[in-house]
Amino acid sequence: MANYLEMNREELTAEKAKLNEQYKKFLAMNLKLNMARGKPGPHQMDLAMGLLQMNDYTTDAGTDARNYGDLEGLHEARVLFADVFGVKPEEVFVGGNSSLQLMYNLINIGYVFGFPESPCPWSQVEKRKFLCPVPGYDRHFAITEEYGFELISVPMTPNGPDMDIVEKLVAEDDTIKGIWCVPQYSNPDGYTYSDETIDRMAKMKTAAPDFKIFWDEAYIVHHLTEEIIETPVLLNESKKYGTENRVFMFTSTSKITFPGAGVSAIACSVDSMKYICKRFSVMIISYDKMNQLRHVRFLKNKEGVLAHMAKHRRRLIPCFDAVKTAFSEELTPCGDIAHWTNPKGGYFISLYVMPGCAKRVAQLCKECGLTLTGAGSAYPYHKDPQDSHLRIAPTYPSLDEVETASDLLCVCVKLAVIEKLLAEKAE
Amino acid sequence: MANYLEMNREELTAEKAKLNEQYKKFLAMNLKLNMARGKPGPHQMDLAMGLLQMNDYTTDAGTDARNYGDLEGLHEARVLFADVFGVKPEEVFVGGNSSLQLMYNLINIGYVFGFPESPCPWSQVEKRKFLCPVPGYDRHFAITEEYGFELISVPMTPNGPDMDIVEKLVAEDDTIKGIWCVPQYSNPDGYTYSDETIDRMAKMKTAAPDFKIFWDEAYIVHHLTEEIIETPVLLNESKKYGTENRVFMFTSTSKITFPGAGVSAIACSVDSMKYICKRFSVMIISYDKMNQLRHVRFLKNKEGVLAHMAKHRRRLIPCFDAVKTAFSEELTPCGDIAHWTNPKGGYFISLYVMPGCAKRVAQLCKECGLTLTGAGSAYPYHKDPQDSHLRIAPTYPSLDEVETASDLLCVCVKLAVIEKLLAEKAE
Repeated sequence: MANYLEMNREELTAEKAKLNEQYKKFLAMNLKLNMARGKPGPHQMDLAMGLLQMNDYTTDAGTDARNYGDLEGLHEARVLFADVFGVKPEEVFVGGNSSLQLMYNLINIGYVFGFPESPCPWSQVEKRKFLCPVPGYDRHFAITEEYGFELISVPMTPNGPDMDIVEKLVAEDDTIKGIWCVPQYSNPDGYTYSDETIDRMAKMKTAAPDFKIFWDEAYIVHHLTEEIIETPVLLNESKKYGTENRVFMFTSTSKITFPGAGVSAIACSVDSMKYICKRFSVMIISYDKMNQLRHVRFLKNKEGVLAHMAKHRRRLIPCFDAVKTAFSEELTPCGDIAHWTNPKGGYFISLYVMPGCAKRVAQLCKECGLTLTGAGSAYPYHKDPQDSHLRIAPTYPSLDEVETASDLLCVCVKLAVIEKLLAEKAE
Repeated sequence: MANYLEMNREELTAEKAKLNEQYKKFLAMNLKLNMARGKPGPHQMDLAMGLLQMNDYTTDAGTDARNYGDLEGLHEARVLFADVFGVKPEEVFVGGNSSLQLMYNLINIGYVFGFPESPCPWSQVEKRKFLCPVPGYDRHFAITEEYGFELISVPMTPNGPDMDIVEKLVAEDDTIKGIWCVPQYSNPDGYTYSDETIDRMAKMKTAAPDFKIFWDEAYIVHHLTEEIIETPVLLNESKKYGTENRVFMFTSTSKITFPGAGVSAIACSVDSMKYICKRFSVMIISYDKMNQLRHVRFLKNKEGVLAHMAKHRRRLIPCFDAVKTAFSEELTPCGDIAHWTNPKGGYFISLYVMPGCAKRVAQLCKECGLTLTGAGSAYPYHKDPQDSHLRIAPTYPSLDEVETASDLLCVCVKLAVIEKLLAEKAE
């Protein structure tokens, strides 16, 4: 293989013909592969089946976890998540099976009622805005889009969002009400925010008194190397600057135990806790404490969580390796037609293909039976201005499937790039 | 005992002294009894422990209930609740552990976005109103109060809300956006809406095109006699008049299996289903389908649910009987100082004491260690204009405790009434 960027028309045409042959072979396989969503595979979920073997639902306090009560979560569940977050139990709210729903609930509270620091409910801020580090998580962006926020893209760097830009924007504009963050092993790049980024998030001056950081620790224990990366805890850092009411941290066990039946949690200041409990108490009597107790008895504490995640890791490393190996073997020799991230944790690899090619790659994959997240979905309004980014999720398929999918993906990337190069030469 | 209403001052004073002696004996017992909330007791929850004995979470369709997906609920769970509601599976949405949260979500959708029939979101209707049959369920009223609706009381009758009043109000005022109903074994009276009431609910003309009936079938299978009362299904009836988008029916297994860890459901038109799924898809990926599947495998179908509820009934009838027997033995001889409902199902008995006495009764009970739902809580803004109503919940305590609590309650009623009569004679 040679560098595509140095090929002439004839060479490109010949290479295209070769690739078309390879593509046809994949077509003939009638594949049905999916690397779209960040879903754990059956082998990961099987590891958690032990948590179902429980018959006594008496809590440490002697209460009955089966009945109503304890809106803010079982005490022992708050202790577990406090350990994971690195905060105090009274700063933790333990919810149901969905941290996304908790985020939605809090955006909704801001919109309908406002927060204690709000001059008015966010619904009354006509040109309300929310910061979206890009590429980011489509479901985050969708919530604020649903509530009529203008989504302002902020570029991601390997150290987190570009803080020069963030600081400038939030200092000037009081209609910017918050920012979406996935600080550890970011979705989709797999970057971890630097200590400096976290400090600047805690310290920055915001024009809006009710600016909120939605800090989604979805992958806080999802290490893919033996290095257990730990970062400063935003809620604790923010106390140094008196900005702790700005912080809502989230996590869940969706990608630890069961995606559809895990336990979610919020960490926030005690003041914020009082306020959200008052609002939540109108909405729900209490969350599923039986499931909370099952999780506590099974995972025990942060150490137990990390031990469990080590079992996940053993199963996930080969899948991530398969993708990255295919990329470097198949794409690197073709010249600067693509680059990708090398995450130390989390659920995704970002693949950046030659600008203008991402949609075409996804289409070629789809027509051959491989579903990727729609090109552009990591950007507000699903519009990747470069049409370059693809989010690769290697966690759900089996290793065999990941290997096949990665090979197919490389063929599609090369095809799309050659199509583009040929089109450019024709112009 | 003689009729209090015919007693003179001296007789009342003598009777009061006797009652005070009895009250002191209860005080000395240092009781800690609770008949406040509609909570199932441990003996009821124990009956459902069998549902936890399940290891295979493969659905009938061969999918994995542990993973993400199926926002609208597992197919087999939709089938189960369709059977219970008396509607079609495609008209059923199966949620998480809280039907209250589903109701909150729908009020919120109306408020923030409106429904497809809405001229504008409810938030933009300045003097928005909601009808509240009284006495009713405090948590229903609280949701609409939270969202700034004026709560309009409508009197309950043994056949349901006074439909002459309801029809007149909704026909005239397009700012009335809905009504809260507990049609079967109403909370707190235990009344079941008549066929005529249900028909009129379906048929009535509403000035608001987006008027919604929140039809909480919390007690649809909670029969307390051997008579299985079945009423016309509002969603089906409404189709006769083309008003099916008006109807949101709710139920849950909170008072069938586990209060804190049951499964909730909505029944509505297919049009409404499409709309709410679109909105919900921004909020949550899917609800806890493992718990849904456990419930389906354990309860099987409506027949299975009814068989399970027969076991509840055997344990609940003695408790309801203890309350009613105490009332008729202790209160009836005192003349027209109180009356109460005789529910054929549900979770509550309404006790109506002489106007002006309910708060005092609750206070006397509380000071003696018996917690009742706060007097007035069955009315909007917690204001019972008569100060007459007390909601009695005999389901949670043991039979011994219910017997003691009922005796104490009767003493407190008599004391409060005598205090009132003496005060009146002093004027």
